[in-house]
Amino acid sequence: MRKIDVTPIVVDPFNTDFQQRWNWTTLGKSLLNAAENHAKARGFGMMELNGNHYTWVLARLTIEMVNMPMVYTKLNVSTWIESIYSLFTNRNFSITAADGTVYGYARSVWAMIDYETRQPAQLEQMEGQAFEPYLFPEQPCPIEKAGRVRPLSDDNYVCSLDTRYSDIDMNSHVNSIKYVEHMMDLFPMEAYQNGRNLRRLEIAYMAESYYGDRLSLFRRQVDEDTFEVEIRKDYEGPDTKGKTCVRALLKFG
Amino acid sequence: MRKIDVTPIVVDPFNTDFQQRWNWTTLGKSLLNAAENHAKARGFGMMELNGNHYTWVLARLTIEMVNMPMVYTKLNVSTWIESIYSLFTNRNFSITAADGTVYGYARSVWAMIDYETRQPAQLEQMEGQAFEPYLFPEQPCPIEKAGRVRPLSDDNYVCSLDTRYSDIDMNSHVNSIKYVEHMMDLFPMEAYQNGRNLRRLEIAYMAESYYGDRLSLFRRQVDEDTFEVEIRKDYEGPDTKGKTCVRALLKFG
Repeated sequence: MRKIDVTPIVVDPFNTDFQQRWNWTTLGKSLLNAAENHAKARGFGMMELNGNHYTWVLARLTIEMVNMPMVYTKLNVSTWIESIYSLFTNRNFSITAADGTVYGYARSVWAMIDYETRQPAQLEQMEGQAFEPYLFPEQPCPIEKAGRVRPLSDDNYVCSLDTRYSDIDMNSHVNSIKYVEHMMDLFPMEAYQNGRNLRRLEIAYMAESYYGDRLSLFRRQVDEDTFEVEIRKDYEGPDTKGKTCVRALLKFG
Repeated sequence: MRKIDVTPIVVDPFNTDFQQRWNWTTLGKSLLNAAENHAKARGFGMMELNGNHYTWVLARLTIEMVNMPMVYTKLNVSTWIESIYSLFTNRNFSITAADGTVYGYARSVWAMIDYETRQPAQLEQMEGQAFEPYLFPEQPCPIEKAGRVRPLSDDNYVCSLDTRYSDIDMNSHVNSIKYVEHMMDLFPMEAYQNGRNLRRLEIAYMAESYYGDRLSLFRRQVDEDTFEVEIRKDYEGPDTKGKTCVRALLKFG
């Protein structure tokens, strides 16, 4: 079996934003679906791991788009494993047109956790799992790795929301991409008009949140186009700071 | 060209709910995408109409699922035009497995409106449009047509939300399926547990809403499994009743 999977995807009209560009929700879910399908075809998808009481959880995701494809564009979403080390695996992605035009790249870091205890497994010592034949470090992913996003302060509080049915995915926690949707909704329409869009996203997943949790969103502007966002659960003001679920950097342009 | 289009779709893992069933958001958008792709291939898609200053808007949507397909199921989403009359066209859908097993059916009613004035066009008199060769009334769609949903009262008020970037689609209004997502989020997790799910949805789209509108949701229980939901904009309590955007019937089971 090849090391890389290439999934053809068309930018369908109702998967676009108001500017007829592919929306980030569909983009993000397409990456996660490609990752899971790649793992499944090689014997270490979530369903196979669930039989062994493990599942994959996303620890970090970085997406950088040179250009956002327009409605009806025919895309190839490619994914491969860059490396495996200790508790984590690095998986990369490219989003290109059928003719090879690059739209963007993505990097992700995953941990395999015990479904019950939510504790991570030592990937290099997983019995019966053969990741090595699929390692593909030589395949280029020419975007910078994510930096560290600083913690945000109570002064940066914007709003809170209660998680609901549509936030939850097959892992029974708030879906990784739903956090992105909630973060993007912090910005006014002007951030997405006149050719402007989210260009680069770095997100670190630090703790899971579940159905019924109240999420509080914090935002700090770094420069004209760059914002840091943090999402905490159980935040009730300066006295009860809650637990940080995700921390992210968003660059517009 | 055939009268019917059949689109193969796989239930991808991150397009499911917490029970690993295809989620209604993806189901609904798959129907709209199939509809638009069918129309486009025959010369009357939104992009072609936009050139002529018209676009399609959904007036009614009824979806009834015998069974909700599980993750990795290979589906065929089929769509065809049942009829065209005066200001509306009836378009139907089936959702089946590759082996023919029926998962569900859907009925929809669309109007073609002027992009600027938002007024509907007389479909039978549209110059240069040839719908007739594609009419397919003999193809069965064995689910009941939608009934009338009664107006809800102020006593049925549940909550309000402000529409944001992720609510808006290429028609620059709140997406038809996002209303469904907001309605489904009115119900607690128990409505979707122990094999229970939304089984039948009837929704009437009565007025458009836009970015920044405040939507207010009303819900009334009809019987153990049946609920009526209404969404209004500009509702500020009994004195300012606002404008009804959608009215829906949801049957669980």
